[in-house]
Amino acid sequence: MFESAELGHRVDKETFVAEVPKLREMLLDAQFDLAKSSHFPVILIVGGVDGAGKSETVNLLNAWMDSRFIQTHGLEKPNDEERAQPHMYRWWRLLPPKGRIGIFNGSWYSYPILQRVHGKTKDAHLDQSLGRIQRFERMLLDEGALVIKFWMHLSKDAQRKRLKKLEADPLTRWRVTDQDWEHFEMYDRFRKICERSLQATSTADAPWTIVEATDFRYQALTVGNYLNDALRKRLSGQLNPSLVQAPPLPPRLDSVNVFQTLDLTQRLEKPAYLVELERLQGKLNLLTRHKAFKKRSVVLAFEGSDAAGKGGAIRRVTGALDARIYRVIPIAAPTDEEKAQPYLWRFWRHLPRVGRFSIFDRTWYGRVLVERVEGYCSEADWMRAYGEINDFEEQLIRNGTILCKFWLTISPEEQLRRFEARKETAYKRFKITDDDWRNREKWDAYQQAVCDMVDRTSPSRAPWTLVESEDKNFGRIKVLKTIVERLEAEL
Amino acid sequence: MFESAELGHRVDKETFVAEVPKLREMLLDAQFDLAKSSHFPVILIVGGVDGAGKSETVNLLNAWMDSRFIQTHGLEKPNDEERAQPHMYRWWRLLPPKGRIGIFNGSWYSYPILQRVHGKTKDAHLDQSLGRIQRFERMLLDEGALVIKFWMHLSKDAQRKRLKKLEADPLTRWRVTDQDWEHFEMYDRFRKICERSLQATSTADAPWTIVEATDFRYQALTVGNYLNDALRKRLSGQLNPSLVQAPPLPPRLDSVNVFQTLDLTQRLEKPAYLVELERLQGKLNLLTRHKAFKKRSVVLAFEGSDAAGKGGAIRRVTGALDARIYRVIPIAAPTDEEKAQPYLWRFWRHLPRVGRFSIFDRTWYGRVLVERVEGYCSEADWMRAYGEINDFEEQLIRNGTILCKFWLTISPEEQLRRFEARKETAYKRFKITDDDWRNREKWDAYQQAVCDMVDRTSPSRAPWTLVESEDKNFGRIKVLKTIVERLEAEL
Repeated sequence: MFESAELGHRVDKETFVAEVPKLREMLLDAQFDLAKSSHFPVILIVGGVDGAGKSETVNLLNAWMDSRFIQTHGLEKPNDEERAQPHMYRWWRLLPPKGRIGIFNGSWYSYPILQRVHGKTKDAHLDQSLGRIQRFERMLLDEGALVIKFWMHLSKDAQRKRLKKLEADPLTRWRVTDQDWEHFEMYDRFRKICERSLQATSTADAPWTIVEATDFRYQALTVGNYLNDALRKRLSGQLNPSLVQAPPLPPRLDSVNVFQTLDLTQRLEKPAYLVELERLQGKLNLLTRHKAFKKRSVVLAFEGSDAAGKGGAIRRVTGALDARIYRVIPIAAPTDEEKAQPYLWRFWRHLPRVGRFSIFDRTWYGRVLVERVEGYCSEADWMRAYGEINDFEEQLIRNGTILCKFWLTISPEEQLRRFEARKETAYKRFKITDDDWRNREKWDAYQQAVCDMVDRTSPSRAPWTLVESEDKNFGRIKVLKTIVERLEAEL
Repeated sequence: MFESAELGHRVDKETFVAEVPKLREMLLDAQFDLAKSSHFPVILIVGGVDGAGKSETVNLLNAWMDSRFIQTHGLEKPNDEERAQPHMYRWWRLLPPKGRIGIFNGSWYSYPILQRVHGKTKDAHLDQSLGRIQRFERMLLDEGALVIKFWMHLSKDAQRKRLKKLEADPLTRWRVTDQDWEHFEMYDRFRKICERSLQATSTADAPWTIVEATDFRYQALTVGNYLNDALRKRLSGQLNPSLVQAPPLPPRLDSVNVFQTLDLTQRLEKPAYLVELERLQGKLNLLTRHKAFKKRSVVLAFEGSDAAGKGGAIRRVTGALDARIYRVIPIAAPTDEEKAQPYLWRFWRHLPRVGRFSIFDRTWYGRVLVERVEGYCSEADWMRAYGEINDFEEQLIRNGTILCKFWLTISPEEQLRRFEARKETAYKRFKITDDDWRNREKWDAYQQAVCDMVDRTSPSRAPWTLVESEDKNFGRIKVLKTIVERLEAEL
């Protein structure tokens, strides 16, 4: 979930200085149009970890725009009157009217999350609160509000550095409190609970946008551009029901993405590969005979660029398995029967029994990959799919299914080489179609879709494993190793 | 919530015999059009108390329609395979394809409700499950399904009689199990938990319809007509976004409604009235000085027909209160400031502090009364308002606010008398406007709206009190008495 926000996104000073005047003008224009039309209020939530520049961002937005039309609210302790009222009373009082922007630095999320972090409530209570929040935001959306939710993120390491730096400077020392360090000690717990909260409330109409907070210029430009895009999208007021009336996905300010964490030059020479293959296949086979496996099941989900080697990797897995305990399910166009059912139905029908594997060669993620990029479904459909997929996988995991998701990565150059090779090898020629060449032209759009997918469907309980498959041997071993380690941990 | 389903609705044999052939023809037509268009599946849930004729209804629908295009599923124990899968697996397997009707006698609601009834889970877990169900049904709706939910209801007394009758007949004795009687013993608990579950999942797009099950002819015609109306509404396929793509409200097969439980001839003569008034006002005044009241607050909500005596009743309440502890909030057209906010905002702003009363002369129910009847808001808006209002009131109650809701009832004849009298009394003339005369012409539409309101917003924690106000004295005393009793119970 926080993958893209731990990559060290940066914007250099020159770019920032060049961009800001344009952005300010656009924001002021949008704000003016908003005030003039007065058709809807804007509710902008800024949440995140301590020291992640929430206040600075809010101050900057006020400086960039006409602050007379912005209402900013910090998360102060509720006063006597507010304490005696229902929990949401204070937020109702602070809602911005139509035509105005209300910025909430801290929001209705803070209290339920902190109660859970401090162990005063259990997961079920947190979910109960999140359900209430969802209904509240649903009401705001139905009433026409534009709801924008930013989550400012720092990795554990980045947060430690940030707090230390603030403490070292006499001018900012006062800002670091004991409570901040106390929260830092609970970073991992905090992160897990935030992840659960963000995932449950990231709906198609009011999605969370996670912003990396290590570089303030990047953070400020991301927030400013996103706000401008969201305002413009909404002000253009299209009533096309197939379009989500919601903020767009975040702008990309640099070319940094999750794929840059991968080193595609990694190789494994044949002799070492064969030794490893045999060792891991043996281990995997043994694990499937483990007593505990009789009560568990495994779902393996394979996605990747065309020619990235999904089939080959899958065969190396099935090579280790008794043919009676697995099924490989190749996902192509849905059958008539499947088209007559909700989208996820065709995956539910192939879930494994206990003691079995279901191996999906392409998966339910088609909705947010090919269907999104090729326009086979509406924006509203693929935007809601992230939540539906998370719900689906949560059910699997809650039921004890072990779920591994692989994205096999190759460079565009390597893909070209493999396409050409397929053309020339008679028995591989069937594997390359016109579609493959067409998809290749949309490389960037697919990359974008994959990044969004990883950001929105990679909770710690069901993470994506990105596999460097430039060298096939390396990729296959990484897949096998991941499966073996997960089974060892779970059984 | 179950008010309208405990009134003894009946349909006589002649009507039934005359209606059924027409209804069957319509249902078959609708079913044929559904199969032909194959645009959407119909998911029909039948829930309810034991002995409430769920199976009989399902059988009848199969007999009336072409059962080849209906898939009926009873709630059997999950088999081995299903037990090893996520909880929703079995329901996914049973979903009807587009163009077909799936009837679920027992559904995804049964397990979470029964777990709670048997004390194996707590409210928070129930809410968690209901949240998952809501997201599941949201997905079905987004995928185009028509979701129809019937709840077959019997009052405690009616259920006892039904079980006894089944037992007395040798032919049906086998149908009453020990478990049925065991459930009967828990009737009150079961009812409370069902109420919570139905309320939380009765959304604008997939509302629950409560059907009284004392008379099978009534029950069968209600279900059949509703199904036909819902199919027709959906098949007509209007894409007007201001219309809910959902089933309509239930048909009215007889003139029995909650107002028939009221005896409008009840009177209280002046001397007795004055004695009671003084006694109750004294009690009320004392209660507001009770130590516990310092931590509580009171919201009184007054609705009623024009000239039903809301103002007079309110003055008899305020007559007992220190002027510093109450505010009367007359609700008229919203101000500009209020129009720029979500609908409920203008009520939140007038909530009482602890130790105070807020008395609303007309209320947030305007949305589902005047705004619905006069078309001031869209069907989608007032349909979602029931849920929003329930959420709102639940927050008040959870916060310890004591909430009393009064609907003041008079007959149309009495209203006419009062209108005429107002015209003639100089100092009352301002109280009667052209609007009042216009509203009077829509008496039936308003009655209908009031019945739907009582059915959908009267949970046991925030029930409506219907007040017979034909005799003003009687009505005023009933209002005061209700408040005094509620305060005595709560403080």
